Amino acid sequence: MNVPRGFQLAGITAGIKRSGRPDLGVIYSRGPLAWAYSATQNAAAAACVARDRALAATGKPVRAVIVNSGNANCATGEQGVRDDLAFAAAAAVALGLAGPDEVVSASTGVIGHKLPLDPLVAAMPQLAAERSESVEGFARAILTTDLTEKVAAAEVRGGARVLGVAKGSGMIHPNMATMFGFLMTDALIDQATLRAAWQRVVDRTFNQLTVDGDTSTNDMAVVLASNLVPADAYELELALTEVATELAKHIARDGEGATKLITVRVRGALTDVEARRAARTVAGSSLVKTAVHGADPNWGRILAAAGRADVALDMARAAVFAQGTALYRGAPLAYDARAVSHALREPDVLVEVDLGVGSAEGTAWGCDLTEGYVRINADYTT
Amino acid sequence: MNVPRGFQLAGITAGIKRSGRPDLGVIYSRGPLAWAYSATQNAAAAACVARDRALAATGKPVRAVIVNSGNANCATGEQGVRDDLAFAAAAAVALGLAGPDEVVSASTGVIGHKLPLDPLVAAMPQLAAERSESVEGFARAILTTDLTEKVAAAEVRGGARVLGVAKGSGMIHPNMATMFGFLMTDALIDQATLRAAWQRVVDRTFNQLTVDGDTSTNDMAVVLASNLVPADAYELELALTEVATELAKHIARDGEGATKLITVRVRGALTDVEARRAARTVAGSSLVKTAVHGADPNWGRILAAAGRADVALDMARAAVFAQGTALYRGAPLAYDARAVSHALREPDVLVEVDLGVGSAEGTAWGCDLTEGYVRINADYTT
Repeated sequence: MNVPRGFQLAGITAGIKRSGRPDLGVIYSRGPLAWAYSATQNAAAAACVARDRALAATGKPVRAVIVNSGNANCATGEQGVRDDLAFAAAAAVALGLAGPDEVVSASTGVIGHKLPLDPLVAAMPQLAAERSESVEGFARAILTTDLTEKVAAAEVRGGARVLGVAKGSGMIHPNMATMFGFLMTDALIDQATLRAAWQRVVDRTFNQLTVDGDTSTNDMAVVLASNLVPADAYELELALTEVATELAKHIARDGEGATKLITVRVRGALTDVEARRAARTVAGSSLVKTAVHGADPNWGRILAAAGRADVALDMARAAVFAQGTALYRGAPLAYDARAVSHALREPDVLVEVDLGVGSAEGTAWGCDLTEGYVRINADYTT
Repeated sequence: MNVPRGFQLAGITAGIKRSGRPDLGVIYSRGPLAWAYSATQNAAAAACVARDRALAATGKPVRAVIVNSGNANCATGEQGVRDDLAFAAAAAVALGLAGPDEVVSASTGVIGHKLPLDPLVAAMPQLAAERSESVEGFARAILTTDLTEKVAAAEVRGGARVLGVAKGSGMIHPNMATMFGFLMTDALIDQATLRAAWQRVVDRTFNQLTVDGDTSTNDMAVVLASNLVPADAYELELALTEVATELAKHIARDGEGATKLITVRVRGALTDVEARRAARTVAGSSLVKTAVHGADPNWGRILAAAGRADVALDMARAAVFAQGTALYRGAPLAYDARAVSHALREPDVLVEVDLGVGSAEGTAWGCDLTEGYVRINADYTT
């Protein structure tokens, strides 16, 4: 995939993961970047989130993003705050930047362990030296329990590029759970426009993603613009939405223990906000997730999940569909249970709910809940 | 256990469960009952919930509760509304009551199938004939995927009795999920006082119970008072709270696939409401539930769950305990991981969180998330 003009990336093994897998990555820009940032609402947010938020609030451009995987540097007290700053400062030195305020930092992994700063700092010169117009190394270096790298790209009319890289597996839920989303573009766009667009993009994509309902302490999505190629702001927003949607689906499909991607489309809602909330609630329901896992057309659970989403719903006009087959429309419908169950064995499952009260729509993405999820999560730190 | 004076109960097999297990139960009172009712907030609530709510709103006394298990009579349209009324009317005839308005109805089981009214109506005379001062038959007849009957009792100073019977297994979450709670007392209490007390009792007990985060369409908790024994209202509320707490713990312990009861105590909160919400969020976190299942002292997940509960939390003053051992207090603590993990193998697990911002407290109950939960729920209707 073509990296947007002005960007360079790298990913290497600094040695903080016991597995020896890559654990340190960088996104670098030759010039100043306009950027927009969205992060976890968790009150126990990590040191990097607090620092990045403060950086974003200044409105000043940045030049790089430094990322480690394997350690979240969260719940690490004042030490963690100092370590995060030192992490960014070491990156700034290696990249020849003015200081840590030009570097967004992101950490993911186990909570509550001191960030192993020494190997990270020692690896910075190598990381800087390996920068290139290639995304693969970076995409690998940001993973934790993910099974696959997550990269997506789109082109804006006029030639500007959008490239997105994400990670995320468990603990994914609005807002901004254990996931990172890094979108890069070489489009020319002023920061205020970019920030307004980014909120809309995130609300319709990453914030509509749920793997296990837990919201992480570290997670963030950022868009970086190198401002080299003229582009229409609306076309750019469409391309960002397309790339972020594709990444969200990648993340859901690769949810811990997941065997299926579940797309939930809600229509007939009173408002967009209610449509999105209902879609998230259905996608996040353990009972829906297990039913899909078992290829069980249990539409009652789907309707019950929509019903508890605190949205307007008219049972007499509501409808539920699985893989395109209507199962309920104001009352239970006769349907071929064997055929629907067969269709639910596909790796891509589409659930549709019409709330029967309006015309607003929303989509959410999730995955099935499996015995594998339980096995992965019953023994992570020990 | 001693049934409160004035009450009779029965439970029989009407034949609507394929398993042949008991599926029809009744609570009957020789005189008019003061009562208070709390039910699911699900917008897709079942026919019985809508009818019971309307009955409760009239403020008139009732004489009986009729319950079937195996069919929820939910999402069954206008037919379901008629069937629910006919179910209550048939009970009224068999019990010699004035009409269906003296009968609270409750249905639990699969959603979206027509209530099999004929066998239920045919079984009513036998049900009425088997009434006795014994709770066991009723306690069995209201179960679905539950493994054990759930009964608890307490005595109020002065001799009034409180007896509670509950069911619930999966789909349990505030408010009033797939659970029934029936509390009976022979205490003398006016209905207004009873209703005010009941809201407080339910908020601290059944509404603090979470098995899988799904809120059911049918669930309800009711207290019935036969007004035969003088009692102090405060002492009665304590006894109701004691019985409802014991039932909530029974239900959590018997959650689908559960191997452990998890009690989450939150203190240091700004308000009681925040304390209870934080406790529920921790108890409902899939990551906490799987960690407890794996006896993994992963306090980072506990803190992260409290952090996303939309409550005030001070990371520098917060603390986390598992089985009484402090794991975090403003910063990670050194602890004997092997000993804590060993302690977490107990069937009763206590998690404590101090939010570090106030003095309010709250407790929630839940259970671990296991491969068994997934197996049970991946194939329920088909």
